[in-house]
Amino acid sequence: MRIALIGFGNVGKAFFQLLKNKRDNLEKNGISLEIISILNSQGGIFDAQGISLEYFSNEVELNKECYKYSNFAPTITLDYVIENGNIDAAVVLTPTNKDTGEPGITYIKKLLTKGINVITGDKGPILLEYNHLKKLAQDNNCTLAFGCTTGGALPSINSALFDLAGSEILEVRGVLNGTSNYIINEMEDNNLTFEEALKKAQDLGIAETNPTLDIEGYDTATKLIIICNTIFNKSLSLKDVNLSGISNLTIEEIHQGKTLGYKYKLIGTAKFINNSLTLSVGLDKVYSNDPLYNVDGKNKAVKFLSDTLGEVTVIGGASGTTPAAAAILRDIINIEKGINFTKF
Amino acid sequence: MRIALIGFGNVGKAFFQLLKNKRDNLEKNGISLEIISILNSQGGIFDAQGISLEYFSNEVELNKECYKYSNFAPTITLDYVIENGNIDAAVVLTPTNKDTGEPGITYIKKLLTKGINVITGDKGPILLEYNHLKKLAQDNNCTLAFGCTTGGALPSINSALFDLAGSEILEVRGVLNGTSNYIINEMEDNNLTFEEALKKAQDLGIAETNPTLDIEGYDTATKLIIICNTIFNKSLSLKDVNLSGISNLTIEEIHQGKTLGYKYKLIGTAKFINNSLTLSVGLDKVYSNDPLYNVDGKNKAVKFLSDTLGEVTVIGGASGTTPAAAAILRDIINIEKGINFTKF
Repeated sequence: MRIALIGFGNVGKAFFQLLKNKRDNLEKNGISLEIISILNSQGGIFDAQGISLEYFSNEVELNKECYKYSNFAPTITLDYVIENGNIDAAVVLTPTNKDTGEPGITYIKKLLTKGINVITGDKGPILLEYNHLKKLAQDNNCTLAFGCTTGGALPSINSALFDLAGSEILEVRGVLNGTSNYIINEMEDNNLTFEEALKKAQDLGIAETNPTLDIEGYDTATKLIIICNTIFNKSLSLKDVNLSGISNLTIEEIHQGKTLGYKYKLIGTAKFINNSLTLSVGLDKVYSNDPLYNVDGKNKAVKFLSDTLGEVTVIGGASGTTPAAAAILRDIINIEKGINFTKF
Repeated sequence: MRIALIGFGNVGKAFFQLLKNKRDNLEKNGISLEIISILNSQGGIFDAQGISLEYFSNEVELNKECYKYSNFAPTITLDYVIENGNIDAAVVLTPTNKDTGEPGITYIKKLLTKGINVITGDKGPILLEYNHLKKLAQDNNCTLAFGCTTGGALPSINSALFDLAGSEILEVRGVLNGTSNYIINEMEDNNLTFEEALKKAQDLGIAETNPTLDIEGYDTATKLIIICNTIFNKSLSLKDVNLSGISNLTIEEIHQGKTLGYKYKLIGTAKFINNSLTLSVGLDKVYSNDPLYNVDGKNKAVKFLSDTLGEVTVIGGASGTTPAAAAILRDIINIEKGINFTKF
């Protein structure tokens, strides 16, 4: 498979290194992946024979600014690559804007229109325009894979598409934000206040300096919407989610929960109320007979309730750039093996 | 998709009813499934236009012996159906013999050789000859799906194939036998001895009159072998499993576990010891930070440890004939959407 890599931040770099580490193993399994081009907003690198993983990874390891890489040229654009690269797929990993979907959405639309498969970790485009992008892929005989957008290594989209096929999904409940889950867990285990636990998470690089997206539930809501739009063929957006976060949680509430046998978790829930799909994100009491109960620390999980297959829960979501890159690689391998995500 | 149904026991009947219940929903999603023939060891029913689900389900509901069904003829055989039915797939649900794989294995070989997709819940053929059957499917451009053999509704095979794609699986641990898990849970919750809990499970129809396969670990071992042969391309068999069951578990041990923070579970484990894949089934102590800890009652789960995607656990496995039939339908829908299980 001939691949263009668009966006070369931390996950892009981890993806490149992963391909280098996995190449022998993949080739043993009959899978050959070539990176034809690496692009970012300033230009790119192009080699129709495939960029040498060894040579280039030295440059990455030197941690140079990308425009200082050998052969980097501002004239290499996506149009140039589509015209000259004969690419089968593009991996789109740009810094996502959740209000506009840019810059990923413009790249993705161009690629799908040309019949080129897209694998992305960009939440913005999928959050804002999944149904339109899905139709573009269907109309142009290619596919769009986005498993990385909803928990990285957590196979939430895989599970929604393949594990519940033929059943009706009645309810979705997920622990979808590792940072919030880590903070709550610190409060439980180490008797920290919310502020102390947040500070610890920030010091460890788990929470961002501005933690709003994580702790106020926006990240959970984004992932829940992507999962629901995928399953239910809807075009839900953030305004459709009844949203609250974890910043008001107190140690007293946690103590009371321990006494009464439940834990608090930031849960994204989608269920049908009077036949209408209703989405909410907020603190919820989770009892010990619930598979989500022990999803602690940075772990993530999603539980589906279905009519004929009962409850199916997936737990996982190793954090960091390598698992995120491995989630991209997973989608690529599944496409290479013939899976078309947008056929579901 | 034109389907022959081979074997018409409880799961076969549930599958037939499920198709009837789901037909409108499936057709709304562009999926049309026709049952062309129903076969068992005594003969069968055949209608090249598709057997009427309504008409036939009346016969099923009357609980007649199958040979009394309208149009049942001893001259209808699989050869006849292959010759005259133009079938795309066969669902094989015969009473399985785990020493010979018969009668399913003969049916499955014949079907795959003719390029007809097979979806089966028969453990015997997959346990004994998976690699041979996989090659038959590959050589004849069709596929073999067997998700139902390893926990029914639990998507263990899906997860092994699609959720860990591109990563290296380092370890598999599973709670794969609902009956054993139920018995242990009864001992824990209701302070029953093993014998009392077994008796209760038998009275409720959860355990069989001869419970050996479940409580001595053979069923867990069978599922573990199927999962491992699928993942690791091996031809492991029961003799490769270090096997023990749950019948020696005492209330005292359970009490001690409660005090020390662990539960006993019957766990199937596959891991590499000195580069050699080593399989075992037996009671294991499971601590509360393990996603398997709360897999109680009749639930089942499998946990994969991988190099780049971390830990991925799936929990589920609603019991009974409808979830088993729904697991068959899931495989059919996935095939209909273009997934080829034997390409992985």
